[in-house]
Amino acid sequence: MRGFGSDNHATVHPELLAAINEANINHAPSYGTDDWTESANKKIKSIFGTEWQPFFVFNGTAANVLSLGSHLESFHSIACADVSHLNVDECGAPEKIAGVKLISLKSHLGKISVDTIEEARIRLGDQHFSQLKMVSITQPTELGTVYSLEELRAIASYCQKQGLLLHLDGTRFFNACINLDCEAPDIARFFDVISLGGTKNGFMMGEAVLVKNPERAKVFKFFRKQYLQLPSKTRFISCQFARYFTNELYLKIASHSCSMAKLLEQRVHEIPFMEILYPVESNAVFARFPKKFLKKMREKYFFYVWDENDFSVRLMTSWDTTEHDIKGFYNQAVELTREAPL
Amino acid sequence: MRGFGSDNHATVHPELLAAINEANINHAPSYGTDDWTESANKKIKSIFGTEWQPFFVFNGTAANVLSLGSHLESFHSIACADVSHLNVDECGAPEKIAGVKLISLKSHLGKISVDTIEEARIRLGDQHFSQLKMVSITQPTELGTVYSLEELRAIASYCQKQGLLLHLDGTRFFNACINLDCEAPDIARFFDVISLGGTKNGFMMGEAVLVKNPERAKVFKFFRKQYLQLPSKTRFISCQFARYFTNELYLKIASHSCSMAKLLEQRVHEIPFMEILYPVESNAVFARFPKKFLKKMREKYFFYVWDENDFSVRLMTSWDTTEHDIKGFYNQAVELTREAPL
Amino acid sequence: MRGFGSDNHATVHPELLAAINEANINHAPSYGTDDWTESANKKIKSIFGTEWQPFFVFNGTAANVLSLGSHLESFHSIACADVSHLNVDECGAPEKIAGVKLISLKSHLGKISVDTIEEARIRLGDQHFSQLKMVSITQPTELGTVYSLEELRAIASYCQKQGLLLHLDGTRFFNACINLDCEAPDIARFFDVISLGGTKNGFMMGEAVLVKNPERAKVFKFFRKQYLQLPSKTRFISCQFARYFTNELYLKIASHSCSMAKLLEQRVHEIPFMEILYPVESNAVFARFPKKFLKKMREKYFFYVWDENDFSVRLMTSWDTTEHDIKGFYNQAVELTREAPL
Amino acid sequence: MRGFGSDNHATVHPELLAAINEANINHAPSYGTDDWTESANKKIKSIFGTEWQPFFVFNGTAANVLSLGSHLESFHSIACADVSHLNVDECGAPEKIAGVKLISLKSHLGKISVDTIEEARIRLGDQHFSQLKMVSITQPTELGTVYSLEELRAIASYCQKQGLLLHLDGTRFFNACINLDCEAPDIARFFDVISLGGTKNGFMMGEAVLVKNPERAKVFKFFRKQYLQLPSKTRFISCQFARYFTNELYLKIASHSCSMAKLLEQRVHEIPFMEILYPVESNAVFARFPKKFLKKMREKYFFYVWDENDFSVRLMTSWDTTEHDIKGFYNQAVELTREAPL
Repeated sequence: MRGFGSDNHATVHPELLAAINEANINHAPSYGTDDWTESANKKIKSIFGTEWQPFFVFNGTAANVLSLGSHLESFHSIACADVSHLNVDECGAPEKIAGVKLISLKSHLGKISVDTIEEARIRLGDQHFSQLKMVSITQPTELGTVYSLEELRAIASYCQKQGLLLHLDGTRFFNACINLDCEAPDIARFFDVISLGGTKNGFMMGEAVLVKNPERAKVFKFFRKQYLQLPSKTRFISCQFARYFTNELYLKIASHSCSMAKLLEQRVHEIPFMEILYPVESNAVFARFPKKFLKKMREKYFFYVWDENDFSVRLMTSWDTTEHDIKGFYNQAVELTREAPL
Repeated sequence: MRGFGSDNHATVHPELLAAINEANINHAPSYGTDDWTESANKKIKSIFGTEWQPFFVFNGTAANVLSLGSHLESFHSIACADVSHLNVDECGAPEKIAGVKLISLKSHLGKISVDTIEEARIRLGDQHFSQLKMVSITQPTELGTVYSLEELRAIASYCQKQGLLLHLDGTRFFNACINLDCEAPDIARFFDVISLGGTKNGFMMGEAVLVKNPERAKVFKFFRKQYLQLPSKTRFISCQFARYFTNELYLKIASHSCSMAKLLEQRVHEIPFMEILYPVESNAVFARFPKKFLKKMREKYFFYVWDENDFSVRLMTSWDTTEHDIKGFYNQAVELTREAPL
Repeated sequence: MRGFGSDNHATVHPELLAAINEANINHAPSYGTDDWTESANKKIKSIFGTEWQPFFVFNGTAANVLSLGSHLESFHSIACADVSHLNVDECGAPEKIAGVKLISLKSHLGKISVDTIEEARIRLGDQHFSQLKMVSITQPTELGTVYSLEELRAIASYCQKQGLLLHLDGTRFFNACINLDCEAPDIARFFDVISLGGTKNGFMMGEAVLVKNPERAKVFKFFRKQYLQLPSKTRFISCQFARYFTNELYLKIASHSCSMAKLLEQRVHEIPFMEILYPVESNAVFARFPKKFLKKMREKYFFYVWDENDFSVRLMTSWDTTEHDIKGFYNQAVELTREAPL
Repeated sequence: MRGFGSDNHATVHPELLAAINEANINHAPSYGTDDWTESANKKIKSIFGTEWQPFFVFNGTAANVLSLGSHLESFHSIACADVSHLNVDECGAPEKIAGVKLISLKSHLGKISVDTIEEARIRLGDQHFSQLKMVSITQPTELGTVYSLEELRAIASYCQKQGLLLHLDGTRFFNACINLDCEAPDIARFFDVISLGGTKNGFMMGEAVLVKNPERAKVFKFFRKQYLQLPSKTRFISCQFARYFTNELYLKIASHSCSMAKLLEQRVHEIPFMEILYPVESNAVFARFPKKFLKKMREKYFFYVWDENDFSVRLMTSWDTTEHDIKGFYNQAVELTREAPL
């Protein structure tokens, strides 16, 4: 079955799967002292800058929670978008594991702004109140929008001025690069710590935390282990990163996902009963969808209802989305309209 | 390079790798609602008994810490062997994540006994003292020994009588079955919660927590997510379990690892400068090794020094250990002795 | 200096201080096994009902966090008012210590309603989302308002129906009884666990957690100790509770505080430049106050600016507020108006 | 009833109680911004040195756990004596609240040595192992013995050399000063953070954490609040410290407690059936006591059995122990021997 459910539903990209198969030779030291990990580290440094130290972990929740826990004290708070994964999709892991408090900021198109952060930066020095120390943004956002470099710069300047750390939940980092037509450092330079996603970009599994502060980088490995994230056979995660950053595969994957979303957006525009909700700037198309067609459509192409109140739906493309998928989705929609007119 | 460093150094078993490659078809729902996971669950239940509910996680530390955290309150303590992974190789994860206290018990050949548990079961009802609520044993132990069914029964009866939960760190579970010539339930029946290992048995990665208490099973998924252990593309972990439990692959792997250890033990016996330290009942051979040969030997066949004080070393076999490896190790040792006699 | 800063600024009530002085005889067993504690327990049970088990702790933050931590699993969330102490005045203690997630609910006059709780009761069974398991309300609220018995009943019925525990932050519990002209059980019956305040009601220090669930009551002492809240010389806290519940002192204190607030409200009404903001139903008067008089007024009678944006202020009365204080405040305000007319 | 149960069983010293009564005037700002707290801070700095920043908390468990949590990262471990309060009397609070691991060191007469610390300082840099970062010692120890200044210097030099922080559990700090005939800084100088006890030295309740590191001192207040230890009416704790450090009351209390223990020791020596177990260097006398006399003796003078295996008992003196108490204990013992000879 195929569909637009999630980039987590996709298969592993054949090149990444090949990397895994190829890594399956000989004995290799465990816990990250293998050649693949060394190679992946080098490639990440060559693309992001040598000031970054990468650490491989299993999943995105872990990358986020480790980013927080390794950089904050327990009396700190983190400001993040109300719709952010950190806030609504981690089952309280940031609170339980890092021991910190999240401050949910009202977002617009999935984005937060300096104004909303400023509103949360209150009661400094007041011992009764969790002290704001970090801002976390998602790029691209959960709504498939992308902060412009100017927006990032504004937030980063504010954070730097106020002594706030800036974290990036970069689950689909390179989709933003594609959209902004920029290089990784153009985005990365604004941040102190980055959750760099693999899983949603064609990996089997695997994320990286990129740490800039050398003191924090020195102790990060202990946090990773204690937070249950040290892979025994690390090579099978790091080999994916090594391949991902070879021959610009990372760009090809991001580029394909984004262009498929653009194509899907065009087609959805043509479907009379659907309405695009947000700018399509990554690999997500959010649209209003009449309830009566939902069941039928999902039988053939699965996708998630995002909000049951207004029947907005989320259509995700991924590295393996084809024009054929999109055409099929479109045709099915057209057919349904014919059968049961609005 | 090959060696006896760890069963974590081994490659992925070809059948398990095949399962992964085969699972890489179509879109699949994420987070464990896929067919491979359903199949793996069924197979585990068919082998361990339907009273067990399996949950797949990334690594062994996580399986252990989740076993504790999901079954205990924070004022509880867990008694475990002084040499247990839980106690000395988890970087304080049980304390930090589950919030509990570990009571380290003196062990003999890696095993604890009812007597040592009894000594730790003190100050019941005393609010100043963490209340003993769980015993955790490792089978096979970190020293490659195996609790007999009688030993297990004694500990389990004691625990049941005293209202203590019994946890199994079963990283290499089936090696114990091979050694005891028994079925999985013969061991499993004594326990309340089991960390069932995959990674060290030829998996790429992946462990399962088997939960018996239905109330705990009902909420376990929330703990798993909050403890950073919910795999997005679960199919790539569960497909390994599904294959592992097909055509008795799990027994073949365990059987091979154990018989290679036995063979290695025989050869080590013949090496004049080496001395076997513990009964070889799983896939580990512990032996005394003269310091002067260490560097040379490790250049060719890597293995770990277990204790730098007495130069005891640990030689691990795995699913991919060959007779040729063992012969090579032996020949190299013999050669060294010739060059530099004791 | 006197003022309306906080009921925490007040002295210890002479009867309670006398109780402390009188308790200072002989040796007494520590950690709550003394006669004063037994007496206090009995009195609390006689007033609240024998189904409640009281536990004495040091402060209000602790009473709240213990109420949560002893009744919830870490993947649970608690819904509470956006303005609640739990949410904005505990420096992240609920998250750090109990490991849970707080869901901040929009409040009206400091109160939450079934509708707002209902909105937060989402994604049940969804492993990515902290599961709502408790509602916490403050009675009287932080804004000095009081839930009517009907409002409490509505919330309690909803919670019971939905399997949600209901917690009361009862820092100034009996002020609500005075306002509602009801007995303790009329309020208490709706709740599963209660933080019963002492400090703000004329105590030197000391709060009680009242636990209804017998299973939780059985283990509560371990949580109390582990959460750093077991007083060594418990008698000096419990003797205050014993005296507080003797000869209706608790009602006298609450009654006086509330009537002083009513008197203050009347006088504030008469001050042309002040405007009462919320119904005065406990011992707090919230009012708008012109910025230009602030410094002068606070020199003589200290009080807190509640919101620096609109210069609303909070005037708290307490057991030791006198008519003379209120008259003085009024006169000072009148004088200021004369000097510097609006 | 009187006895030798614990210095927690004693009453509040009349001068300290007077201080409390005297502090009960006027309104005072809460949360430590009052005059008594300022005065107590000054006095502590004048006695311990201005490099120390004091923070008042409720009890000893809290002082200890805050000392750890505010100075360590969660992957750190603390080495402490097997018999230390931290290890066996805090119900797992250090693990649960500070998230760290305790390493229990074999002690001799309640003391640990450089050798035992050295043995625990292993696997540095190994990500699988909690990294030793702090040593905690109790002075006087739980067995009533006192580290000599030389012993302290040896441990402190070792710690400084190895980059380990040194914590003092100074529940009965000045008893050690009396024994060593030294000033507070002679002991304090060796440490990085000190739990300074009040409760067991005649206070109603109250302890202080003394912090040396200025960076940690700056944020300590947030930890204190988050760890549930910020007293609302702080003045009633700090006024005790202010008085304690006036007219050398702290020395009088310590001196009296210690001399009573010495007297008790002499008398116990004369009781034929009792045997002193450890050097009496503080306010504790440990002795072997025949089981058959236990019940009778405890009816009149309560004391604790320390070890039920060998019927060793602990007799604690305190600020309020009188010669009459000791004489009465002695006489009772003599009488019992007459009635039922050994």
